[in-house]
Parts: sequence; structure tokens; C-alpha cells
Amino acid sequence: MPRFKLTIEYEGTPFVGWQRQENGRSVQQALEEAVLAFTGEKVVVGGAGRTDAGVHALGQVAHIDLASDWPTDTVRDALNARVGPERVAVIRAERVADDFDARFSAIRRHYLYRLSERRSPLTLDLHRLWRVGVPLDVAAMHESAQALVGKHDFTTFRSSECQAKSPVKTLDRLDVTREGEEVRVRAAARSFLHNQVRSMVGTLKKVGEGKWPVNAVADALAAADRARSGPVAPPDGLYLVAVDY
Amino acid sequence: MPRFKLTIEYEGTPFVGWQRQENGRSVQQALEEAVLAFTGEKVVVGGAGRTDAGVHALGQVAHIDLASDWPTDTVRDALNARVGPERVAVIRAERVADDFDARFSAIRRHYLYRLSERRSPLTLDLHRLWRVGVPLDVAAMHESAQALVGKHDFTTFRSSECQAKSPVKTLDRLDVTREGEEVRVRAAARSFLHNQVRSMVGTLKKVGEGKWPVNAVADALAAADRARSGPVAPPDGLYLVAVDY
Repeated sequence: MPRFKLTIEYEGTPFVGWQRQENGRSVQQALEEAVLAFTGEKVVVGGAGRTDAGVHALGQVAHIDLASDWPTDTVRDALNARVGPERVAVIRAERVADDFDARFSAIRRHYLYRLSERRSPLTLDLHRLWRVGVPLDVAAMHESAQALVGKHDFTTFRSSECQAKSPVKTLDRLDVTREGEEVRVRAAARSFLHNQVRSMVGTLKKVGEGKWPVNAVADALAAADRARSGPVAPPDGLYLVAVDY
Repeated sequence: MPRFKLTIEYEGTPFVGWQRQENGRSVQQALEEAVLAFTGEKVVVGGAGRTDAGVHALGQVAHIDLASDWPTDTVRDALNARVGPERVAVIRAERVADDFDARFSAIRRHYLYRLSERRSPLTLDLHRLWRVGVPLDVAAMHESAQALVGKHDFTTFRSSECQAKSPVKTLDRLDVTREGEEVRVRAAARSFLHNQVRSMVGTLKKVGEGKWPVNAVADALAAADRARSGPVAPPDGLYLVAVDY
């Protein structure tokens, strides 16, 4: 059966997350129902990143097998027509080889986290950034973040619900930059532990507001102790930007 | 009584527009209720631009008179606390002279209109751009727009409901630029007729998609005939960006 790679954008706010769950609407379910409405086929839409409730995607990737070799534009438009008023869109559909697997073929995942320094409530950007409401020292955040780049035991920045076999991961990039009142954290790695990006961002925010010294991040990592992480940042500011293959 | 200038941001989608109306919730009403909850005073919050239903603001300006000479940060924070979960925020509060009038003292209003060429539905940007779904010739749009800059009879681009005494206005700027898949139209003038920006954008879009020639805009203007305007662009893409005094 022909295999299609889908690049998917969504606003995570109304969803329980990417993955099917008993307790609410998932992005995966919305897409699987769109495929069923399109071709009558029951498929499992496996994604590259299992984003949590409220986390957004600009470039989530999934693959599906369909009985017919549809033109890729037809797949994209038909799914978009059927996913309907939900805040999910197929940006691109491509034909790929049978051994392409959205999750296991991925060699790098790129995340973006957006923080806002502004004091006033968000309106157009509500649920799209973490409004911290205080000035952040971006240089200190970036410097402390560099202690996390490389191959480490990330136990400190791992959710207690994380199902990965090993807490050792290689973080390729963790950059902190400013764009006006907005502070952006960009993270890239082959794979991440559950809540790793949000735990790292919550810790960097402590450094940014001057509550923790720059070396606190390296110390927290070395302790390999969940209790040493800063608070987990809210999902509102997190975006799965792209997946490399 | 001390007079305060308020700079206000809002998402227009849930509102019937800036101005109080019988048929639904307005931004003005939300702010007047916030003032009442803050000081117990019934005020009229007069705005610089009477944005229509669904039109957004990044920098709407209004003024209010209060009995006490509150610190400006208190006014901002107290109104934000009381305007509550609505998608309205006071970005700045300033003390101004008694003769400052948000509407009549304004010397220039700046609007932005955002169009998206992309074919897939919008998710995070839903209600924030006009998704036209086809490639636009930005150079042709910009060239044709220049015929509108200057002092003209804008009858062609005026709503039949417009209450202005004269259809003659001076348009200072109408620039069309590209940012990736997004096309931005920036307009500035001392004041605009009702639906003028959206009528001009709807007309420029006809040129951008190649349905009308570049000179069609100048011809439509010269005709001074409402029937010669392109369709009125939807409110979703329009932002009142700033007001100069």
C-alpha cells in the first residue's frame, strides 16, 4: 500500500495532546476520522512527536498507508476539507518509501518555546506564549543553557511519567534569543524525554528573572534529581517546529 | 478631573466592534464595565478608531476622565484585572492634558492588513489573516496601490453606511510587501472612510491574483462609483496598529 508522509500544523489548546486518549479529543483522532471520512479506511496516524495537551505544532510529521495511490495534493486537500473546523491543517502530503516511519526514521526534532515579558494580558497571542510579566536576562539564560548541550543524563528534566528506557539524551542545541518583548528558546535533539523542553525552559526562566545564578542549571543537571528542576513551563508557549529525516 | 490616555490591544473576533451596540458585546462596553468595577464611575470610553466587528487592534487609543489622580500603572493594571478573561488589554495608561481627545486630536491612523497565500486552512492564525489561497503578485498590488495615495474622492471605496460628511480624504501611505507566505498592506491617513481599508484591500487582491489589470485601481477611483470597488475584504486580517497625535 502506498505510504504518505503528512506535515501537520495545529493549535494545541483545544486538544488533550497528539495521542489518542480516553479523556478527550486528540489531534491523532481528528486526523484518523478525517482519513476514514475520505477513503473509508481505518488507519493509525502515527506521529513523530507525542505533544502534550496545549502544545502546538508548526511541523508535526505523521505517516499513513492508503489503499490507492492518490495524488498528494488530493490527500492534503481532502484531509483538510474533512478535518473541518478543528484547528488542525495538513500543510503538505508526500509519497514516501514503505520503510519511512514518522517516529522511528526521525533524526532530529526542533522545538521552539516563546515567552513574553509583557505585563498586560495577552489578547491575540493568548495561549500562544508564556507571559512571565517580568524582564528576563536573555544573555544569562543563554549562557546557562549551554551546560545542557551535549550528551547527558537528563533525569533532572524528566517527567515522572516519562516512559523512555534511558534518561541519557544528546541535546544538539539550546539557544535563547530576544525579539522585542518576546524571548525565544530553540531546542533540537534526536529525541527528548517527556516534559524535557518545558522543564528546561522553566529552569532557564528562574535564571532569567535573576532568582537562580547562571551555574544553577549545570548544578541541577549534575544532581540528576527531578527535585532540582525549575517548575515545568506551561504548554502554551511550546511548538514542535520541524522534524528532520 | 484628571484625563488618562489608554493604549489598547484586542482580538476583534468575539466582539461586535469597538462601539457600543444593541446587538452584542463591544470592546467599548467591556472597558466601560472595567472602569465601573475599578472606581465606581460611569464613563464613556471614546476611541480613536471605530473598528468594525472582527477587526483587531494592536494600538487603539481612548481617553477617560477619573475623579482621582491614580498612578498610571494602577489604572493599567486595575483595568486589566477587571476586563478579565475578555481578549482586551490595556497596554499603557498615561496622564494627558484636559484638551486631549483620542478621536479629535488624532493626526494619523495606521492600519495593517494581513493576507495569506497558503492553501491549507489556518490553525494558530485563524481569524488573524485573510487566507486567499492563491499566489499574489505583490509588485503589481503595490504599483496599483500608489494611485490611491494622496488627496482623492474615495467614494468608490466607501461603505454605503459611511456617515462622513465628505468622501474626500488624504491617504498618506498604501504599501504592499511580502513576508514569506504572508502579504502585508500598510495604510496611513489622518482618517479613513467606513470600510475604506477593506475595500481598497479587496480591490488590490483582484490585481494580485491577476484578475484585474494594474490600472483598474486608478480607474475605479476616478469613477467615484461604489460599484467599481472590489469586494470588501473580511475583517479577520485588519489591525488598527497605532494612532499618532
